[in-house]
Amino acid sequence: MTDRLDAILAHIDADLDAARGRLFDLLRIPSISAQPAHAGDCRAAAEWLRGQLAGIGFEAAVKETAGHPAVVAHHPGPGGAVPHVLFYGHYDVQPADPLELWTSAPFEPVLVDGPHGPRIRARGAVDDKGQTMMWMEALRAWHAIAGSPPVAVTVLIEGEEEVGSPSLDAFLAANRADLKADVAVISDTGMWDIDTPAITTRLRGLVYAQIDMKAASRDLHSGLFGGSALNPINLLTHILGALRTADGRVTMPGFYDGVAELPEALAAQWAGLGFEEAAFLGGVGLSVPAGEPGRAPLERLWARPTCDINGIWGGYMGHGSKTVIPAEAHAKLSFRLVPGQDPARIAQGLRDFVAAHLPADAHADVTIFGESPGIEVALDSPAMTAAREILLAEFGREAVLSGSGGSIPVVESMRRLLGLDSLLMGFGLDDDQVHSPDEKFELRCFHRGTRSHARLLGRLAARG
Amino acid sequence: MTDRLDAILAHIDADLDAARGRLFDLLRIPSISAQPAHAGDCRAAAEWLRGQLAGIGFEAAVKETAGHPAVVAHHPGPGGAVPHVLFYGHYDVQPADPLELWTSAPFEPVLVDGPHGPRIRARGAVDDKGQTMMWMEALRAWHAIAGSPPVAVTVLIEGEEEVGSPSLDAFLAANRADLKADVAVISDTGMWDIDTPAITTRLRGLVYAQIDMKAASRDLHSGLFGGSALNPINLLTHILGALRTADGRVTMPGFYDGVAELPEALAAQWAGLGFEEAAFLGGVGLSVPAGEPGRAPLERLWARPTCDINGIWGGYMGHGSKTVIPAEAHAKLSFRLVPGQDPARIAQGLRDFVAAHLPADAHADVTIFGESPGIEVALDSPAMTAAREILLAEFGREAVLSGSGGSIPVVESMRRLLGLDSLLMGFGLDDDQVHSPDEKFELRCFHRGTRSHARLLGRLAARG
Repeated sequence: MTDRLDAILAHIDADLDAARGRLFDLLRIPSISAQPAHAGDCRAAAEWLRGQLAGIGFEAAVKETAGHPAVVAHHPGPGGAVPHVLFYGHYDVQPADPLELWTSAPFEPVLVDGPHGPRIRARGAVDDKGQTMMWMEALRAWHAIAGSPPVAVTVLIEGEEEVGSPSLDAFLAANRADLKADVAVISDTGMWDIDTPAITTRLRGLVYAQIDMKAASRDLHSGLFGGSALNPINLLTHILGALRTADGRVTMPGFYDGVAELPEALAAQWAGLGFEEAAFLGGVGLSVPAGEPGRAPLERLWARPTCDINGIWGGYMGHGSKTVIPAEAHAKLSFRLVPGQDPARIAQGLRDFVAAHLPADAHADVTIFGESPGIEVALDSPAMTAAREILLAEFGREAVLSGSGGSIPVVESMRRLLGLDSLLMGFGLDDDQVHSPDEKFELRCFHRGTRSHARLLGRLAARG
Repeated sequence: MTDRLDAILAHIDADLDAARGRLFDLLRIPSISAQPAHAGDCRAAAEWLRGQLAGIGFEAAVKETAGHPAVVAHHPGPGGAVPHVLFYGHYDVQPADPLELWTSAPFEPVLVDGPHGPRIRARGAVDDKGQTMMWMEALRAWHAIAGSPPVAVTVLIEGEEEVGSPSLDAFLAANRADLKADVAVISDTGMWDIDTPAITTRLRGLVYAQIDMKAASRDLHSGLFGGSALNPINLLTHILGALRTADGRVTMPGFYDGVAELPEALAAQWAGLGFEEAAFLGGVGLSVPAGEPGRAPLERLWARPTCDINGIWGGYMGHGSKTVIPAEAHAKLSFRLVPGQDPARIAQGLRDFVAAHLPADAHADVTIFGESPGIEVALDSPAMTAAREILLAEFGREAVLSGSGGSIPVVESMRRLLGLDSLLMGFGLDDDQVHSPDEKFELRCFHRGTRSHARLLGRLAARG
């Protein structure tokens, strides 16, 4: 086994340039799931992945969903080996705007030098095309050296993760038999730092909403109508301003229902990680935490719910002045949730909060783009133990058992609909500029992540 | 005199189609002062007006200012006649967006049928190209029939009224001698209704500001940074929400300093006008006043200060969801002021209010695009008396002595810098959609306004 694994790891090392080239091919496809104009690109990305999987021995198909298609592929492995592993990834990416802040074009990937050596810059470099391609390349290396992965493998790559996976649950429910496995492996999270691997055991959930506020039937002159006519931007800012206190607590009734205090043991473990919030914030030009007072930094990021307004628009946005009372105003906002909070209740709470603040003549539509609960994953499963062992072998350091402030709704969906626990072994870094201009992925992380996945496959087979 | 005036009015009646055609020529020039791309169009509008004035016997010039040029023209009249009248207008217009809400292109004027007969639809139809062309056409008729206006006339047409007239004060101060006159006549206000003329005796002032808020050095993922990083939209909505109470009072310290209660006599006169706020609001799809409680409708519109957010933008404004904490957020807002409020103190008050709510790491630039005080004009001047007489003659009804919620900064500037009182005799209607899509001007108003200006010139000359 060790000789074979050594050969596989050597193959990965030798093949790194080609692997990077394949990732670049995928990054060139602008598969932005949020924008209908890119629906064709989403399908093209799915087709490209299907082709790659077919090329390394998988029976692979592009499957329709209610939205963008998913890629599903199967390999029986050597036969008789357990566990059956399901790899999950997503090929869709966030919108690239503001485009003018990119150093190079978001869908023309480049390799540039950084403090940790070469890095890949492109939209989706790390989230999640780069991380998906790590386990694809690990499977490719097993195929090249051993002729097959050492266990049965199912692949599921969806195309709607960045818009809240609206079609995923129905797809999982309808394909339960086809997606049967023993454990799910996902790389969509981060390392502790460039030298220290991490396994994410706690994820925040999400409720994402858009508020569309309407008042008068047309734009009005603020001189002629000011003092009489309802201004929907005044109203929207009033409501959004009332939704949070100045120090970051959400005022919506019932918002904190079910939110448990962090267990002391976990709080102590996180405190021992030496997380330097000043450096974390300093990396993005900030110096003072803006979250709830009286909470530890990692608690605020991993174990406390939040409310952020993600976008707002209305009225005159051009140069200079226009004295208008607009007819409409709009905002997008999201709540990060922790275990114990019910996303459906939070969504309804927002609708109720807006309605309670709505005067006559104002009309507000609240559209929910996605909801998922916060979750915790088991710390003592065989897969978790295997992952900790191989990460120690690859990096020479214990993996941090971390939380994550972001949400991966599929983890909850796979648990609920497929009965599957997820292993969240990711290789991104905090400074990867996920969702921002100049998103990047360290080539070193891509390389060691690929090696780690190759090791994990071997270890899972060995454990049976 | 009466025969000559009759001939002049008959000429105006006969020439109406041609006059409307000349106005259309001016309306086709997209002289949007707020947008640098239209600087050439602003100059083209000034040149066009200069040519028109030269064609009716004026010595006319396009004069440079620090911004868009002004048109200045002189006619000595018959010699010896007093008073010397200064006509003021502005050739610049508001931006036309949102373009998709126009029934026809904003800079392709059309004549369409309405309940009061034909109406002119275009950006600037009434504000202020149409109203400026009324007194231009009155001067043209005097020129055609009498060979000259009956009094000495100076014309001043500026190109920056819609952006707060930033260059006007310096221009007036530098051209004091050239602009010497006894009274200013301005048509940039409205009638009481289609059959009832009005003279505006009270105007609200304006402070227009833009707030540019910055926090992190780049856009951030709301999952990775939410709970730690400052969100500038959260902050901006919090500040703007705190700036007003839910029922429309401004909370900025000192905002109401110097605001006097409305004199009882004026309150009684306005109450007698039978203003129906329900109909006023119903015309734009609203039903309930949104201004300060406990104030009469016209008091809120004409004699109480307001705060309206005119535009807001930041973060993701596209389709669907993007879980971003943006680096920036922006808003435009304006205060309507009444006599007694000091615009400079209000502007400083806004800066102080923003600064007082600004946490560490947030940076806010407050840019003032224009400031002007609220003003009242004299009710008993010879020009006011003349105007009331000729409006009664033209319409068969007494003119309403009204207030206006809008600001005309030039009125205050001409008083302060030229020692000139202004007569505000305008012919717009409340439903003209000033500053909005489908701005229009009733042809009947254009026609009777032209006749009224021709009458006014005659009456001013007769009174000496």
